[in-house]
Amino acid sequence: MSLIVQKYGGSSVANPERIKNVASRIVGSYKEGNQMVVVVSALGDTTDELIDLAHKINPHPEEREMDMLISTGEQMSSALLAMAIQSLSCPAISLIAQQVGIRTDNVHTKAKIVKIEPARILKELSAGKIVIVAGFQGMTTEEDIATLGRGGSDTTAVALAYALSADLCEIYTDVEGVYTADPRIVEKARKLSEISYDEMLELAALGAKVLQSRSVEFAKRYGVRLHVRSSLTKEEGTIVKEEVPKMEDLLVTGVAADTDQAKVTIVDIPDQPGMAAKVFSGLAKEHINVDTIVQSSSLKGTNDISFTVAKSDLKKALKTLKKISDEQLTAWGVTSDDEAAKVSVVGVGMRSYSGVAAKMFNALADKNINIEMISTSEIKISCVIRREKTEEAVRALHKAFELE
Amino acid sequence: MSLIVQKYGGSSVANPERIKNVASRIVGSYKEGNQMVVVVSALGDTTDELIDLAHKINPHPEEREMDMLISTGEQMSSALLAMAIQSLSCPAISLIAQQVGIRTDNVHTKAKIVKIEPARILKELSAGKIVIVAGFQGMTTEEDIATLGRGGSDTTAVALAYALSADLCEIYTDVEGVYTADPRIVEKARKLSEISYDEMLELAALGAKVLQSRSVEFAKRYGVRLHVRSSLTKEEGTIVKEEVPKMEDLLVTGVAADTDQAKVTIVDIPDQPGMAAKVFSGLAKEHINVDTIVQSSSLKGTNDISFTVAKSDLKKALKTLKKISDEQLTAWGVTSDDEAAKVSVVGVGMRSYSGVAAKMFNALADKNINIEMISTSEIKISCVIRREKTEEAVRALHKAFELE
Repeated sequence: MSLIVQKYGGSSVANPERIKNVASRIVGSYKEGNQMVVVVSALGDTTDELIDLAHKINPHPEEREMDMLISTGEQMSSALLAMAIQSLSCPAISLIAQQVGIRTDNVHTKAKIVKIEPARILKELSAGKIVIVAGFQGMTTEEDIATLGRGGSDTTAVALAYALSADLCEIYTDVEGVYTADPRIVEKARKLSEISYDEMLELAALGAKVLQSRSVEFAKRYGVRLHVRSSLTKEEGTIVKEEVPKMEDLLVTGVAADTDQAKVTIVDIPDQPGMAAKVFSGLAKEHINVDTIVQSSSLKGTNDISFTVAKSDLKKALKTLKKISDEQLTAWGVTSDDEAAKVSVVGVGMRSYSGVAAKMFNALADKNINIEMISTSEIKISCVIRREKTEEAVRALHKAFELE
Repeated sequence: MSLIVQKYGGSSVANPERIKNVASRIVGSYKEGNQMVVVVSALGDTTDELIDLAHKINPHPEEREMDMLISTGEQMSSALLAMAIQSLSCPAISLIAQQVGIRTDNVHTKAKIVKIEPARILKELSAGKIVIVAGFQGMTTEEDIATLGRGGSDTTAVALAYALSADLCEIYTDVEGVYTADPRIVEKARKLSEISYDEMLELAALGAKVLQSRSVEFAKRYGVRLHVRSSLTKEEGTIVKEEVPKMEDLLVTGVAADTDQAKVTIVDIPDQPGMAAKVFSGLAKEHINVDTIVQSSSLKGTNDISFTVAKSDLKKALKTLKKISDEQLTAWGVTSDDEAAKVSVVGVGMRSYSGVAAKMFNALADKNINIEMISTSEIKISCVIRREKTEEAVRALHKAFELE
């Protein structure tokens, strides 16, 4: 008897038909003698619809209330999935954050899991029930509901797989696995049979929407092996796991794009120690994730710093910078631009081969795509470009690195 | 400074406009220096939509899962109302069942409140916040969510008013108060400025949808005075309170109708002690509320018992009777009919005047309306009739008792 944790995304449970389909998949595994814990996202576009509704009432709602509102999506879908399983004459029970014992910090809308106390899950499993867990949510130390950020249900699944020492953690989605590039953009994109945590992490952070980056970090740290696959077919998907030598055969594993980027530039920041620290710790305190950072020093004794943030954080970032500027009595200027995008190539092979950057820049130059910012890590290179060039850039890079 | 508990029904918060309207009403009372605790129902038809969705997935969902599903409606509306208040620059916080400390028994979909531990509410009130409470729900001893039955938000409000020793309990709805009959049926129906708990209880139990009967029972037992009024006007509504002598001036206070009735008849039930008890305790065990009961004994040594139940409970009632019949090896027959309705006249004045029943039967007879069952209490008389005659009967009775 294995303990299997499965996670189904919103598109897998978008309507009653699909919920029933997912239910019969789960019952299939249960009847093979497995214990099943299933994490489920909100139905289809429920979360976005709730956010829209909130904004009609208050353009800047408190994040605690936002969490109270949007966490209902997963509560609904978990109850409906439990009902669908019951209609197949199998015992099932849905559980929400406080029942599952998922404890988080107090950072609403982007909470991190602190610990899991799975007593209730274990009790229901030993009563022979299929346990359906509302994903994406936890309880803060204040006993309030907090959500884990976009794609947070992935993290719920990985954290539960670890806490329950599950034998398998399957992430079901509407694509068949992890591809060398978005198949909707690059027709010849290939499905990878396996990928390392580090590569997946870079791809996820860089805009491949198949897994939330935090869930991959979590999986890497605790060695939880993931199987990313489609809820609509029986095909094997992609295994996300620790790195193995043969992976290095590939120079670049995939191409990713993130079109949800905004660029901020601070002009004439005083060239004195600690200024950058003040800026970025101020942004961190507001829980704004800053991405690519580029600094250039000028001869006149001031610097320009550019960085990117998620488009949705731009307003908050500008407000925070204004506050810091006022406190520090600086005279810097701030410009912003929300028409940016980031394209990246990722691969553990980069560690051992040189020339990847040059190849990337050439491929973009050949298409007349201007590179506005560059950032690199050991296993990825990202370029910030104009958003309207994104698809062209992804196709060019996919071809240049022979991923077809 | 007064502590005010207000309750807003689903139609009062059916859309963003109305939510904002309710928010500004609440802020008005808050700015007059009052502490505010506001109970809110689900938006418009949310609960019915969720029930429909559930039935598409499973025609007979477990009631625990149904509660998990439909309680999301109130969680949503409470978060949205808190956001609307915050947008008016007032501090507000939404709380759900386990945070409010509403403890119930384990009867899902019809749970009763056992106790309230309002520590969190008191904490938020003393922090100066307007507290928005998700109505209709509580936590069972199993730490599961349970709902309080149709109109349960009224009971939440009354129970909180009692637990917090509130100075005022206002029930906001889409009508201006309690009327002598449904104004949509009887054009000349009058708004009552006050009504006794007992009369309100009978009216509520008899189909006047303005308040859930359980909330009135609760209010009566603990002496919570209610003000039923409209969320759309500033008009005074109806005060529901202990009986005072002058109320007896009116013979009949109101006419009510309940079209959600089904009639069940058990034919040839053995005429031996304990049979009726077995039937009705069996139904009670399944939490089926039985209404009017009529028994007639025949000469052949068996009885016929007829009773009415809510239409939605008919299927369950028939199944339960089948089970009892099998266990008792009886040979009774069961017939049912879901086209029944009940019309009633209510008034504490009946205690001191005679002839009310005769007047009622005459009024119905004048319209050629056949009376199928009769039941009476100290302050009401109900007749079961064909459903299609309901409106005609209500108008005839309203006129006969000079309520115009």
